[in-house]
Amino acid sequence: MRELGIGLIGTGFMGRAHALAFRNVSAVFELPVRLHLAALADADGQRARHCASAWGFERAHSDWQQLIDDPKVNLVAITTPNHLHFPMAMAALAAGKAVYCEKPLAVSVEQAQQMQQAAQAAGVVTRVGYNYQHNPMIVLARELIDSGQLGQLISFQGEFSEDFMADPQSPFSWRCEEQHAGGALADLGSHLLAMARYLMGHVQAVCADTQTVHGQRPASSGSRELKPIVIDDQAHALLRFANGARGTFSSSWLKHGYKNHLSFEISGTLGTLAFDQERLNELRLYRVGQEGFQRLLAGPALPGYAAFSPAPGHQLGYNELKTLEVHELILAQVGQGQRGTDFQEALEVERLATAIRVAAREQRWVNL
Amino acid sequence: MRELGIGLIGTGFMGRAHALAFRNVSAVFELPVRLHLAALADADGQRARHCASAWGFERAHSDWQQLIDDPKVNLVAITTPNHLHFPMAMAALAAGKAVYCEKPLAVSVEQAQQMQQAAQAAGVVTRVGYNYQHNPMIVLARELIDSGQLGQLISFQGEFSEDFMADPQSPFSWRCEEQHAGGALADLGSHLLAMARYLMGHVQAVCADTQTVHGQRPASSGSRELKPIVIDDQAHALLRFANGARGTFSSSWLKHGYKNHLSFEISGTLGTLAFDQERLNELRLYRVGQEGFQRLLAGPALPGYAAFSPAPGHQLGYNELKTLEVHELILAQVGQGQRGTDFQEALEVERLATAIRVAAREQRWVNL
Amino acid sequence: MRELGIGLIGTGFMGRAHALAFRNVSAVFELPVRLHLAALADADGQRARHCASAWGFERAHSDWQQLIDDPKVNLVAITTPNHLHFPMAMAALAAGKAVYCEKPLAVSVEQAQQMQQAAQAAGVVTRVGYNYQHNPMIVLARELIDSGQLGQLISFQGEFSEDFMADPQSPFSWRCEEQHAGGALADLGSHLLAMARYLMGHVQAVCADTQTVHGQRPASSGSRELKPIVIDDQAHALLRFANGARGTFSSSWLKHGYKNHLSFEISGTLGTLAFDQERLNELRLYRVGQEGFQRLLAGPALPGYAAFSPAPGHQLGYNELKTLEVHELILAQVGQGQRGTDFQEALEVERLATAIRVAAREQRWVNL
Amino acid sequence: MRELGIGLIGTGFMGRAHALAFRNVSAVFELPVRLHLAALADADGQRARHCASAWGFERAHSDWQQLIDDPKVNLVAITTPNHLHFPMAMAALAAGKAVYCEKPLAVSVEQAQQMQQAAQAAGVVTRVGYNYQHNPMIVLARELIDSGQLGQLISFQGEFSEDFMADPQSPFSWRCEEQHAGGALADLGSHLLAMARYLMGHVQAVCADTQTVHGQRPASSGSRELKPIVIDDQAHALLRFANGARGTFSSSWLKHGYKNHLSFEISGTLGTLAFDQERLNELRLYRVGQEGFQRLLAGPALPGYAAFSPAPGHQLGYNELKTLEVHELILAQVGQGQRGTDFQEALEVERLATAIRVAAREQRWVNL
Repeated sequence: MRELGIGLIGTGFMGRAHALAFRNVSAVFELPVRLHLAALADADGQRARHCASAWGFERAHSDWQQLIDDPKVNLVAITTPNHLHFPMAMAALAAGKAVYCEKPLAVSVEQAQQMQQAAQAAGVVTRVGYNYQHNPMIVLARELIDSGQLGQLISFQGEFSEDFMADPQSPFSWRCEEQHAGGALADLGSHLLAMARYLMGHVQAVCADTQTVHGQRPASSGSRELKPIVIDDQAHALLRFANGARGTFSSSWLKHGYKNHLSFEISGTLGTLAFDQERLNELRLYRVGQEGFQRLLAGPALPGYAAFSPAPGHQLGYNELKTLEVHELILAQVGQGQRGTDFQEALEVERLATAIRVAAREQRWVNL
Repeated sequence: MRELGIGLIGTGFMGRAHALAFRNVSAVFELPVRLHLAALADADGQRARHCASAWGFERAHSDWQQLIDDPKVNLVAITTPNHLHFPMAMAALAAGKAVYCEKPLAVSVEQAQQMQQAAQAAGVVTRVGYNYQHNPMIVLARELIDSGQLGQLISFQGEFSEDFMADPQSPFSWRCEEQHAGGALADLGSHLLAMARYLMGHVQAVCADTQTVHGQRPASSGSRELKPIVIDDQAHALLRFANGARGTFSSSWLKHGYKNHLSFEISGTLGTLAFDQERLNELRLYRVGQEGFQRLLAGPALPGYAAFSPAPGHQLGYNELKTLEVHELILAQVGQGQRGTDFQEALEVERLATAIRVAAREQRWVNL
Repeated sequence: MRELGIGLIGTGFMGRAHALAFRNVSAVFELPVRLHLAALADADGQRARHCASAWGFERAHSDWQQLIDDPKVNLVAITTPNHLHFPMAMAALAAGKAVYCEKPLAVSVEQAQQMQQAAQAAGVVTRVGYNYQHNPMIVLARELIDSGQLGQLISFQGEFSEDFMADPQSPFSWRCEEQHAGGALADLGSHLLAMARYLMGHVQAVCADTQTVHGQRPASSGSRELKPIVIDDQAHALLRFANGARGTFSSSWLKHGYKNHLSFEISGTLGTLAFDQERLNELRLYRVGQEGFQRLLAGPALPGYAAFSPAPGHQLGYNELKTLEVHELILAQVGQGQRGTDFQEALEVERLATAIRVAAREQRWVNL
Repeated sequence: MRELGIGLIGTGFMGRAHALAFRNVSAVFELPVRLHLAALADADGQRARHCASAWGFERAHSDWQQLIDDPKVNLVAITTPNHLHFPMAMAALAAGKAVYCEKPLAVSVEQAQQMQQAAQAAGVVTRVGYNYQHNPMIVLARELIDSGQLGQLISFQGEFSEDFMADPQSPFSWRCEEQHAGGALADLGSHLLAMARYLMGHVQAVCADTQTVHGQRPASSGSRELKPIVIDDQAHALLRFANGARGTFSSSWLKHGYKNHLSFEISGTLGTLAFDQERLNELRLYRVGQEGFQRLLAGPALPGYAAFSPAPGHQLGYNELKTLEVHELILAQVGQGQRGTDFQEALEVERLATAIRVAAREQRWVNL
């Protein structure tokens, strides 16, 4: 393959984040293939054309199936609401195209399983947008763990909290719908579960507690009509990892003061590390024999960072994590990828989230 | 009562902390009674005499029963290993004396219950040394909650971790013995459970997971003989509060890098507050409408602080929390106490810790 | 003007940072003109061609004068070593082209003055790369000041320290040459002086102390030949602002542990704000009546941030500050610019830096 | 000497701090002499009696000369307003008694010099209350420096800011009077200068800028009468140390948000350390080869800490620094003191503060 044609579906927050990443990746990395921004799709044709022009895509489509069918498109990036991931990914896989889908993979384990099977049958590269894992600080965390510098892992405390739904007047949206994989657990928690699996490995058993604090919300912004809510505003769980470590998990979109608080602390018999996405360029690390926690700053010695800056401490932004994810996706296309969540792994994340829901509903430990 | 005679049993870390507190309290506060440091007891008579002299106690005893019987002693402070709390407190209560006992109250719920009943029958003041609650920052946290400034409480994340047993060569001690209420849950976790109850109220149900990471330790420092360990090195739990809030609990004495990390975060529908005992003079607070978390520093506007300094930001130390606890104890003697953990409340803490042990052993939710 | 042709000279760290910014700006903002990446120049023709292709520039030049003469180029961006800023900018201005020059403007006040005069005569837009000012948090700081929320300004404490020259074996480079505007004051300090002027206004008088700690360095990496060094490793100054505020200034490239520590604290009669570039998405703010410092996180309510993310706390990176700078530059081309350092202002920064050098050399206060 | 009789003059904030320290020191340390709290003096005889009783002093005096003459008093502690230090210390020295005087030593260099000469002639132990130096973290900082772990010292940035005078309605007091050594420089800055000398050694030259921001204040709290103010609200200086290091100094009592911000950063050719009194139990340290700054917590390995707690991270309070100072004072009485500011050293601090005033007044560098 000499050129890789990109087709992007969706023009919202994540659509633009993908577009930026595809634009940047060839400027910051030496790529093994040439990228071609082939097509952009949005149900609103005018918006599709406008964004295609602004973001540098060759064509615009209002019908996403046409984008998938476009022979110039080799890889389909899906950034639409959760319930559309399934039909779009299935169609792309049926067309034999690589798929880069935003998280969560699907709105049910059943869908996720079908998608994983279709991907396996198609034999194409798949990726799901758990972009936080591509942070050089997280890659460093993984290396510290893999190299045994923390010793045997014994505990994990993780929390992903934001406050964008903390106001009970924040209106109902698809994020509040059960059939769209709504709720804090799906929306935020799945990122943390993916992270826990990436760093700690398989989770064998969970016990959990989920809660709907605000049982109704305005049907739309400012509306007096109230819609009932059944999905979780916050979720807490105990985790038992296959490696013997134990831990806690929390996820909330009601926690005042937090904007992107994907945070965790991992301890082993030789040390402890801690991370908070609100300071994504830092890692706190304590190794046996140190006098206190060190605050590490991201720098060019870490994988990926040097592509953006030769100087340490100059900080990557959220969007650059997406560029790093896309870089790994492209490397995977030529068999050189080292990192990233494929459909198989994303299915495992969905299974874990589902186990948490079952454990909470049935008030018991659930084995995986 | 014009004078209150203090009898102190034990001369270890906590013994000295009590002695310092009793010495300081009359200098920093205007007390409603005059304190008399009447007697000090230690099984080692020579040590008893030495400490009595250094710390200003009138008499020394090698037999604690003599101290209890001493007519000059009105209040008995117990700072011995956990398994001695029961006989000493029971004897003191039988003699009709007030009791100030270090935590945990006892080594079993059964003992604790007997102690509570004896205290009730004796009609005397009792206190258990959950001194962290007397920190002015914690009193402020309680006021913020009680006054509704956080709104309806919805979540609690608490962790008490240290690393003093992280080295597998740290030897066996009574803290490792089940019958002495050993383990991270009893030693550290009970402080956090008392704090959770103080700030959040009653816990209705728990699910938990405890773990022994290091199954054997040297019988004594440097010894080659290894003793098996059955108590917990770390404990994790889910908490359901009677007020509807949910949360997580973690306790570990294996977590590298932490020295006194009694920390928690409480969120409500109107705000979030966070605390870490490693920075005991600070509180992080976010209220709806603020632009970001505030870092509050302790100052003389808070209850208790002004007794030590008229200037904000000058910081209290660990020992001064003990002085504040003793002050409340003395106020309680004259019917003016406002705060502090009595035997009834300490029994509830033991019940909660026991429920966590049962939930972990039986791998199920346990109601209280 | 319907299209703006960009010519970029230089392909180093800053060359790529400019290229990324020009690529990104049309994807993240709605621009009033269409950008055309017309030409890229590097003395190494092969590198010029390679980078032009990777970064999306239409043509490559090995002779920068050809780039300036290129009729498709309307705006010349200069990212070469300091001593080349003068000839390149003068040539571009002579050709009537807009100029976007990296900092510092020139290697002497005399050059800077000529450049400013040439710019004024040419009547074109000019900008100098003091990109840190385009950080939304800095724009917020300026707004807090301008709106009077800090009251009358009374003090400024500023420091820009890194440690990339802390190792005495770090070799000699053009950054160590006096005639190339070398030294910590020029390299780092000028950023801080520009920031001080942006936020606090004109500096009337300075007293200063500069120092060469390592008087010689290897001629090149690993070389045994030592070259003498005369420029400053660190500089300290007292500043008197025209608005009556007083302050301190420090700049060092020897300060171990710091990677990008452009930091300052500004206090007024109504509050204090503090910033550190190593946490560029945060601002600490205290206003009269607050209980403690607030930690503000960047979010979409701030100018510029929303172009990158609709969600607060998702963090911008260093490169995105450059995109914001380029955005203002483009707005200025159509008369809509609001921010940015033009040649006039950059000349004032050079005058201030020079006054500091004179004050240090002559050990006396120097008025501006 | 078998017993050391303590006479304390003054019952304000510092009077009580001294009393607490004298009470505590024999409980927490094994002392080489027995302490006797012999006498307490306050011009208000009733208050003297009340405090003597509460704090455990044997006698009360309303005439401080009587206290000095009291044969049971071997050591005179002076905690009165600054202008009384001179007559009281001179009288105590004339009586051949050891003197422990609060800072600043005197209200003029001339007085300080006489006091130093009288102390030398008397041949007694003297100490001045620069208690911050007795913090175990500061002792550690000194050890890190002395042992060469920071390499050759190259820079010092120090600031002592509070905000207790930030409100222009904060009334006039003796702290605002020039003849009483008023002003932020004397009140706060002298602590920082003493610290700079303790850690960095002699200062050879200074340049400085002082400023009165609020030129008048209410004569007393709530009064409409305004009194003119001439002393400094804030002071800034450049420091040149005899060891070759350079640095900045700031002192303000107008800086909103700060309560006890005695902070500094010291860098050398091998590392950097940083401290802030608002977190007095912490030190930030970076050594060549580390990945990032470490946050050290005070613990029992440090000199002095173990007297208060056997466990690290349990934190000392402000008052305990005073206890440590008193401990060193008592050791000095028996020829075993290792630390502390005597009259000779305090005189050097006054000379340095005076040089700063002269440099500011005459707007020039001043050599010492």
